[in-house]
Amino acid sequence: MSLDAVLARIDADLPAALDRLMALLRIPSISTDSNYDADCDRAADWLVADLTSRGVEAAKRPTPGKPMVIGHAAGDGPHLMFYGHYDVQPVDPLELWARDPFDPAVEDGPAGKVIRGRGSSDDKGQLMTFVEACRAWKAVHGRLPARLTFFFEGEEESGSPSLVPFLKENADELRADLALICDTGLFDPRTPAITTMLRGLLGQEITIRGPNKDLHSGMYGGIAMNPIRVLARIIAALHDDRGRVTVPGFYDGVAELPAEIAAQWDALGFDESAFLGEVGLSEKAGEQGRSGLEMIWSRPTCEINGITSGYTGKGFKTVLPSQASAKISFRLVGSQDPLALRESFRAMVRGMVPADCTVEFADHGASPASAMSTDDPAFEAARQALSDEWPNPAAFIGSGGSIPIAGYFQSILGIESMLIGFGKDDDQIHSPNEKYDLESFHKGIRSWARILAALT
Amino acid sequence: MSLDAVLARIDADLPAALDRLMALLRIPSISTDSNYDADCDRAADWLVADLTSRGVEAAKRPTPGKPMVIGHAAGDGPHLMFYGHYDVQPVDPLELWARDPFDPAVEDGPAGKVIRGRGSSDDKGQLMTFVEACRAWKAVHGRLPARLTFFFEGEEESGSPSLVPFLKENADELRADLALICDTGLFDPRTPAITTMLRGLLGQEITIRGPNKDLHSGMYGGIAMNPIRVLARIIAALHDDRGRVTVPGFYDGVAELPAEIAAQWDALGFDESAFLGEVGLSEKAGEQGRSGLEMIWSRPTCEINGITSGYTGKGFKTVLPSQASAKISFRLVGSQDPLALRESFRAMVRGMVPADCTVEFADHGASPASAMSTDDPAFEAARQALSDEWPNPAAFIGSGGSIPIAGYFQSILGIESMLIGFGKDDDQIHSPNEKYDLESFHKGIRSWARILAALT
Repeated sequence: MSLDAVLARIDADLPAALDRLMALLRIPSISTDSNYDADCDRAADWLVADLTSRGVEAAKRPTPGKPMVIGHAAGDGPHLMFYGHYDVQPVDPLELWARDPFDPAVEDGPAGKVIRGRGSSDDKGQLMTFVEACRAWKAVHGRLPARLTFFFEGEEESGSPSLVPFLKENADELRADLALICDTGLFDPRTPAITTMLRGLLGQEITIRGPNKDLHSGMYGGIAMNPIRVLARIIAALHDDRGRVTVPGFYDGVAELPAEIAAQWDALGFDESAFLGEVGLSEKAGEQGRSGLEMIWSRPTCEINGITSGYTGKGFKTVLPSQASAKISFRLVGSQDPLALRESFRAMVRGMVPADCTVEFADHGASPASAMSTDDPAFEAARQALSDEWPNPAAFIGSGGSIPIAGYFQSILGIESMLIGFGKDDDQIHSPNEKYDLESFHKGIRSWARILAALT
Repeated sequence: MSLDAVLARIDADLPAALDRLMALLRIPSISTDSNYDADCDRAADWLVADLTSRGVEAAKRPTPGKPMVIGHAAGDGPHLMFYGHYDVQPVDPLELWARDPFDPAVEDGPAGKVIRGRGSSDDKGQLMTFVEACRAWKAVHGRLPARLTFFFEGEEESGSPSLVPFLKENADELRADLALICDTGLFDPRTPAITTMLRGLLGQEITIRGPNKDLHSGMYGGIAMNPIRVLARIIAALHDDRGRVTVPGFYDGVAELPAEIAAQWDALGFDESAFLGEVGLSEKAGEQGRSGLEMIWSRPTCEINGITSGYTGKGFKTVLPSQASAKISFRLVGSQDPLALRESFRAMVRGMVPADCTVEFADHGASPASAMSTDDPAFEAARQALSDEWPNPAAFIGSGGSIPIAGYFQSILGIESMLIGFGKDDDQIHSPNEKYDLESFHKGIRSWARILAALT
């Protein structure tokens, strides 16, 4: 049978596939920091070269930001579009990495071998699972089982500013029968998942300005307003004592979980204690009276992602700072309107800034939540294919992370997305020492081969 | 008359005095950052060499931290001990400096020439006013008008960890009839001042730890406790709505201002609007119902000097940070007990940390407030001498800054201190673009010559 030959080829080619991934991981394509612009470009070039070498008609496509990589390949069967992103998160705090984040290596981990390095899981390693599955299929059969469009973005970690205009301008070229997205995780190490429910994101940066320069806290302390005090009051006011977000109108458009989905999630046997225990915690900090999976999949949240003001170096400096700033993100669900919430949030903040201070806002993304329509039989076919590769049957799940691309594919291209990925909860994506299990990489490639066979 | 000849000599020698100050300012002696340890040592060596070149028996004296510089010179009259510090504040944010902070220069300012550079006002420029007055006196008269002990510290900007043990071990050597300290300011550009009331300081750093690593705010947001939320609640709780500090027992030992001092301060005609307006503010942010001078001289305060957590670089990173920390200082007055307050503050903070988080404290100094006894006729003599040099008569004032050394001279050596300095409110000490007016330097040197003549 043709699938068996492809799977055998994947197994035999694994060392070479690993070498290719390592080459891509060595490129520090941090999109949120303009110091790495040239590296983002290099990562795009690498992908174009890799696709081209296998007969895919691929090109780097300019945008006002980082380039997109688009590739087209003829094949039998339906038209599938595959999406991944080649940019990665920043690496600070660098001192917490056990090795150079851009000098990747395969290391022995407690649960088997891991690929260590920034981007190994999010998203270069995941992206390459699909690319390698296609490579093996082509090597065995001489052609691909579907007409394929490859779509690699370089701004996913920095709010995707160029994405919507690019999709609109190239809608006809990119429209396929179905999109495949590899940027999510397994439900647990034995249970694969298709993510059908995604939270949206509203990112806001606020800067409070008080005195027109940094002051000596001895000379001015007690008479001059300290912007840190103002900012702390705002942040402290964002949640009530029961963990609910206090921005006016925040819960408009947030529905209760349908009973059938709730029952499915209950059946997953999610171990809240183990999930929290793995990161050193024991108590759920979110809305009281909600299950752990609700908190991370189907309830909206507000998180402070960063705060800085005044002297933060070694020792002590008695400064009364002139400004204080924080980065704040809201995860959105249901039909919460990101732009309406942004206005409500800003009005709330403005109301807490004393007359002597000013506040400035900066945008870092605003995308609504999205839910896939699983009526398409391709979803059940893919679920079966995944179940064949992994120990436990695959599940339809939600995701706490925001992958706005699926919503844009719906609204701009009019196509559904199937979100399948092989990351694990302990991959430390966005953190120091990111890794991707060699098993995720290997079984991930095999999973895509099975899915391609099932869909075509 | 002998004083006139000294004053003339000071005027003639001003360019050379400036050159000497510039050489000292070029040494980046930042004591709070161990990367500058060798530079602190170089500054001490420079002072030893300068004192020695004029016949002062001077030496660098080791401590577990930065060295002290001690010099002894014979002379007629009483035994005076002069104190200053050769270490300086850090220079960040460096990008706000118009020139290299350690490449000082004389520039034209709106109110005359200024000496620009880190330490020009705090405290190298001030320290050198006394040194230069002594140099001129010796040059004119061949000997000094008093027996002098020079005492230069190198840890004033980093909490003076070695000071108390050093004073205790060398009390007999350092004990004089009176201490002179040059680390304060003029009341206003035309009105010199002797500072007789000093606030104490309690410096605390708190670090809240939650998850055992930085998390992805999409995967964990809503279920995992965010340390920034905990820290913001603590900081927001430190003041009530009327600007009072809420640490239990905080106002124990804080007395109302005596009526006669209050009357004296009223007579100074302090322009609160101008004081705040100069730094871009218009409202007093301290305790409601207090005058501006009370807020900065005689009332205790709590300031947040720095805060940091999570991602603080360019762009956005959806991290849920594992820890958050803040540097907090309390200015103390009257008989507030720094160590009792430290315990009360820590208990309050511990009570606000949820079970899943931990808190760690670090000390950055703990010194009580001090008030000079102005009964000694030397105070009135010095006030007259200062009044002769400057347009307006000199005043006895308070100071918001903490100069714990005066308290230690009282408690350990049993001697009073006279705090006289020539800094101006716009010197931007502890801030970018620190400067010292050339007038402060020149008239400062002349003032010390007059004071030496008056005290001997």
